[in-house]
Amino acid sequence: MTVNAKRFLADLHKLRSFGASGIGKGVVRQAYSDADLASREWLASRLADAGLDVHFDPLGNLFGLGGERSLLIGSHSDSQPEGGWLDGALGVIAGLEIARAAKEAGAAPISVVSFQDEEGRFGVTTGSDVWSGNVSLQQADAFTDNDGLTLAQARGRMADLTGPFLPHDRFSGFLEMHIEQGPSLDQSDDRIGVVSNIVGIRDMRISFSGRQNHAGTTPMHLRQDAFQGLSAFNAMLNNRLADVVTPTTVWTIGHVSLHPNASSVVPGQVTFSMQWRDEDAARLKQMEQVIHDLAKETATERGLEVTLGPVMGIEPVAMDAGLQEALIKSAGQSAPNQWRRMPSGALHDASNMASVMPVAMLFVPSIGGISHAFDEDTDEADLVLGLEVLAGAAQALA
Amino acid sequence: MTVNAKRFLADLHKLRSFGASGIGKGVVRQAYSDADLASREWLASRLADAGLDVHFDPLGNLFGLGGERSLLIGSHSDSQPEGGWLDGALGVIAGLEIARAAKEAGAAPISVVSFQDEEGRFGVTTGSDVWSGNVSLQQADAFTDNDGLTLAQARGRMADLTGPFLPHDRFSGFLEMHIEQGPSLDQSDDRIGVVSNIVGIRDMRISFSGRQNHAGTTPMHLRQDAFQGLSAFNAMLNNRLADVVTPTTVWTIGHVSLHPNASSVVPGQVTFSMQWRDEDAARLKQMEQVIHDLAKETATERGLEVTLGPVMGIEPVAMDAGLQEALIKSAGQSAPNQWRRMPSGALHDASNMASVMPVAMLFVPSIGGISHAFDEDTDEADLVLGLEVLAGAAQALA
Repeated sequence: MTVNAKRFLADLHKLRSFGASGIGKGVVRQAYSDADLASREWLASRLADAGLDVHFDPLGNLFGLGGERSLLIGSHSDSQPEGGWLDGALGVIAGLEIARAAKEAGAAPISVVSFQDEEGRFGVTTGSDVWSGNVSLQQADAFTDNDGLTLAQARGRMADLTGPFLPHDRFSGFLEMHIEQGPSLDQSDDRIGVVSNIVGIRDMRISFSGRQNHAGTTPMHLRQDAFQGLSAFNAMLNNRLADVVTPTTVWTIGHVSLHPNASSVVPGQVTFSMQWRDEDAARLKQMEQVIHDLAKETATERGLEVTLGPVMGIEPVAMDAGLQEALIKSAGQSAPNQWRRMPSGALHDASNMASVMPVAMLFVPSIGGISHAFDEDTDEADLVLGLEVLAGAAQALA
Repeated sequence: MTVNAKRFLADLHKLRSFGASGIGKGVVRQAYSDADLASREWLASRLADAGLDVHFDPLGNLFGLGGERSLLIGSHSDSQPEGGWLDGALGVIAGLEIARAAKEAGAAPISVVSFQDEEGRFGVTTGSDVWSGNVSLQQADAFTDNDGLTLAQARGRMADLTGPFLPHDRFSGFLEMHIEQGPSLDQSDDRIGVVSNIVGIRDMRISFSGRQNHAGTTPMHLRQDAFQGLSAFNAMLNNRLADVVTPTTVWTIGHVSLHPNASSVVPGQVTFSMQWRDEDAARLKQMEQVIHDLAKETATERGLEVTLGPVMGIEPVAMDAGLQEALIKSAGQSAPNQWRRMPSGALHDASNMASVMPVAMLFVPSIGGISHAFDEDTDEADLVLGLEVLAGAAQALA
């Protein structure tokens, strides 16, 4: 089969016109918004034009079905409240073009999907989460957005379009192409990333409580300063983790809340977020132990009380070896010496799909590592190169 | 003259009944509130009973005048929104008792003052600030409280009581007794602090701007994490200041504001308060230089932008040598081996008075170092010991 780069780019730009906003190429197209519904109706018509059977499931996940049992290619087309034009849209339109090219060539059929609410207006990767059975439809229906609207109310907007959930065994596997959303490819000579794993996430809240006091009359050696506790914990953590982590491990203190947060008062309490990600569950556990031990040590040394919140998390997911191999082989042909294997630090619909079928992912660079922002972008040559690598793998697998 | 401890304590407890609130011995008696006005009318009657001439100036500062020219003793009787029973009230009632005892003994006259709004409902040490001429009445009248009420409106409540500002040269000097509001005396064997200086304060805002980014897809070595900048700055600052400070120097990061302050986002910006206090203006300047240089160094090393806000400040004020000497001599008699010289880390009305007359201050312990809270307290034996030391000095000076 031969993919048509021009047609692929035209469809990608057309999808962007639904909710086009802000500076750059930005879009505002949250799940179940007017722009999202309009874009799904347009996409349904393009899938039909390509000779695919159009199907919406109860969540609003949109399928273009290419046969009784086929390879599934896609991603999501909803956006962040202020999103970029590529994100999930790229993977959906790549799926459309490959399925269309396969039909035209009389090759084995390919199916396409645009999952709903990957960006988490209601949950996180809500559409694929429910279809894969991780969360029941009944549980998900009670999820609310920031304005208190329930998912049940939101998906009611699509009720006249929807049919039943599809059986997973209609599909032999799932391929998802996505922008990297990080700077690794962009800052290298590589143009293609074959994803090895989607990293696991651990997230917890930690509080240190000391003694709130007068910033003028409390001598330094008598202070139990919660901020100083956090600062010492952070500095020591960076040292201790050095022996445990790999170059792709990340950890972040992204939220800090001091009390009473006034310049003339020694802070009596601090609550902060501690998040860490790695592709290896055992390493995540090792890091958890370091964090636990160090938080307790810091508290003891500084006369603070420590509260360790529950450790929330998502497990690491390995990509299927066979599907990865097909992507690697295709990358070797279409992008020789310009590809690498790499983990995904961000979560994707592929994480959920991995629990019900073989899955693999392909990354293309994000200019400047920017994503989830109006100025998110990728060179068109890289978009097309990604499409070609994906099509080559799909042809080999279908 | 002989002070009457029982009468002194009875008046102190009576003053507490105006606005008595909360647990412990707490009071709610903000400047110009009903409780404050009622307490000032009661205090005026006690001053009159003691044979003093009662005078309210335009701010509502309440004087009990003991002669044509006299030593002035006092403090303030307004409280924080949730305050302790002693704070300024102690110094006012001590003044009342000493002036009364002087009258009874036919000794040289003593005058008494209760300044208005020391706690800063409208400004900071507003009553003494205006009387000393640091701020004009016209400027101060435009100050507002948290509800938008102006000082002009608030002091209008006392308009039928007030007369003109008194000339400063009616007074030969000012003595102020106060609870320490810190733990130094309480944690030692000393019961009396003779204040050498009121420390100066420097206060500024510092911001580090890095690059806000995805906490999953941004490798550690490519991050420009503003929180990591703050943490590194703080750790290094504690080291660098070690060569500059004395045991009474203090510095505090009390306010921290991260942006966007989300657990899955590498923080792009942090703004924090940096406050430092010392009794020596040159040392304050040295510390400022260390802070400036280090903030810039930290920013350069970590690829951050730094913004250094204006340095706000109050100059250190030295207590008068002659008045200090009188307090030291009296402490040596009434509290031998139980007193020390010490700076005041908190601001007091005495800071303003020092610009118009000789000034000295006396501290008594605060149990647990607690102040500006309902459970602020001091042993009654320490209250009485402080009264006796102050009376001894007043007698020598009057």
